[in-house]
Amino acid sequence: MRRERGRDRTVTDARQTIGRVAVIGTGVIGRSWVEVFARAGCETRIHDRDQAQIDRALAWLDEDLDLSVAGGWLGAGEADGIRSRVSTHSELEDALAGADYVQESGPERLDAKRELFRALDGSAPSAAILASSTSTFDMTVIADGLAGASRCIVAHPTNPPHVIPAVEVLPGASTDPAVVSRTMNFLRQAGQVPVLLRKYTFGFVLNRLQAALVREAIDLVESGVADVEAVDTIVREGLGLRWAIMGPFVTGHTNADGGLREYYGRYGSSYRALIQALDPAAPAFDGEMIDRLSTATEGLVGGATVADLLRWRDDMIRRIRALKSQHPGA
Amino acid sequence: MRRERGRDRTVTDARQTIGRVAVIGTGVIGRSWVEVFARAGCETRIHDRDQAQIDRALAWLDEDLDLSVAGGWLGAGEADGIRSRVSTHSELEDALAGADYVQESGPERLDAKRELFRALDGSAPSAAILASSTSTFDMTVIADGLAGASRCIVAHPTNPPHVIPAVEVLPGASTDPAVVSRTMNFLRQAGQVPVLLRKYTFGFVLNRLQAALVREAIDLVESGVADVEAVDTIVREGLGLRWAIMGPFVTGHTNADGGLREYYGRYGSSYRALIQALDPAAPAFDGEMIDRLSTATEGLVGGATVADLLRWRDDMIRRIRALKSQHPGA
Repeated sequence: MRRERGRDRTVTDARQTIGRVAVIGTGVIGRSWVEVFARAGCETRIHDRDQAQIDRALAWLDEDLDLSVAGGWLGAGEADGIRSRVSTHSELEDALAGADYVQESGPERLDAKRELFRALDGSAPSAAILASSTSTFDMTVIADGLAGASRCIVAHPTNPPHVIPAVEVLPGASTDPAVVSRTMNFLRQAGQVPVLLRKYTFGFVLNRLQAALVREAIDLVESGVADVEAVDTIVREGLGLRWAIMGPFVTGHTNADGGLREYYGRYGSSYRALIQALDPAAPAFDGEMIDRLSTATEGLVGGATVADLLRWRDDMIRRIRALKSQHPGA
Repeated sequence: MRRERGRDRTVTDARQTIGRVAVIGTGVIGRSWVEVFARAGCETRIHDRDQAQIDRALAWLDEDLDLSVAGGWLGAGEADGIRSRVSTHSELEDALAGADYVQESGPERLDAKRELFRALDGSAPSAAILASSTSTFDMTVIADGLAGASRCIVAHPTNPPHVIPAVEVLPGASTDPAVVSRTMNFLRQAGQVPVLLRKYTFGFVLNRLQAALVREAIDLVESGVADVEAVDTIVREGLGLRWAIMGPFVTGHTNADGGLREYYGRYGSSYRALIQALDPAAPAFDGEMIDRLSTATEGLVGGATVADLLRWRDDMIRRIRALKSQHPGA
């Protein structure tokens, strides 16, 4: 049972694509990537300029693997295998030796990222992909002027990536399309859910969506509409239950028998009124916009009817609520 | 097993507080409330001006109860008990006879709500609570001028309430505090999670938070940053997994060892930059605001350390991902 849970749901095998990974920078994000890659079967070489940071990362990894074994997510042998694939290196060059893929998770400052990428491009094997965990910067700028700009790419995880799978992948202006597809494939094989973005914007998608909700949450509390507990409860026992199953477009699609097209068509004006209460420069909800979004959402759900989707969603939400009532938390 | 799942997690007993409920209006929201109240042990009398709507609601209830039995959420006897507690009434007065609690779910137009509340106040027993499912209007306005304004209250559910528990409860200016606490208790006993709002604002809390995220989601798609599938995936495999477990304030609290205070303190400026990119009139993230929000959030998590919360959250997210991979959907 234990081994099966681990084998089915957590451990993957990405060695066919990428045999050796270097993780550069071992803070909260870097150490979590170490677990992702070593769990995926990759030899994982880690480096940080700060030896104490490496020590903390290894101690964290050790504890997290113990917890995963205790929780039935990994077999004891699998945890040992993961530990055996991780090695630490005080010299950057040693960590990069033979790497097929490098995941940079250093300090979130542009000058630091640019300097580090210069060093990575100078020392990593020429075929290695150089990926950055940056949540802020455009790879076009980070890799500007590098000989190896074509192999540089953003792979921004959701914190922490060893638990939450979505990864935002965004090439820079010079990134080779083959690097994009190899990165997407590798992350998928490593058990993540890579999502390709088309264009740089400050905060990418995940943090912009999050900030939009947090901004409104703070405003509701500060203006006295609801307290912190009320706002958190409405997300946790309301919106979040739907969004763990379906994103905002498919959620809208399930709000009317005729899908998003009918929903936005019928409620477009009240949607617009509400959105304009938040933002006077809100989208117009005109027929063409509704058509574009609806066509894309219909493509996304494929042949599933709204009734099929609702039946599945309701069952899934009941299951999640049952989990939450069985494990009421800290 | 089947009976136990139903008994533990779905069926509750609210008869001590409220023996008889009237559900007025049986569209998508009203029919779902019928299941909530009848499941909670209440005699549930339903009325709609449109007989065809009542017929559709009963057919839906029948199918949903069959699905719940097939899915192991209810025992067959429990489903029969629920059916036996529901009665339909073509006259409003008959539906209201003997009611302790009335849930109005009629058309979302102010004139229609005001007219219906006048009729409810005229015909319902004088001790009955009159609750509205409105997502839009202020009870101060709906009940303006009614003799029984003190017993009128908003109880706005998350769609659909028989599956998703959060309910926004908002008294009007004349609502008796005893009506507020009886409504909160009753909804809690019926298996919902009522959340008390302090002040009216257009869209309340849930729809404002949702609209804030949807507005940004549409903007990201329309401006070519990401396609519909990418945005939905980032919510479903990223943000939504966290928000099914923790609201935005406790999520922020788990982002630094020192909790929200440290997180907003340390990252206040980047948060502000991102939020201001979305909204130039963004909150200032000054020390006093950080202190207010942090103190409230610390109160909310009680004695739990950030490490406790993370351990629990990570385990819960793994469980939800396991559910999703076992039931990949429509």
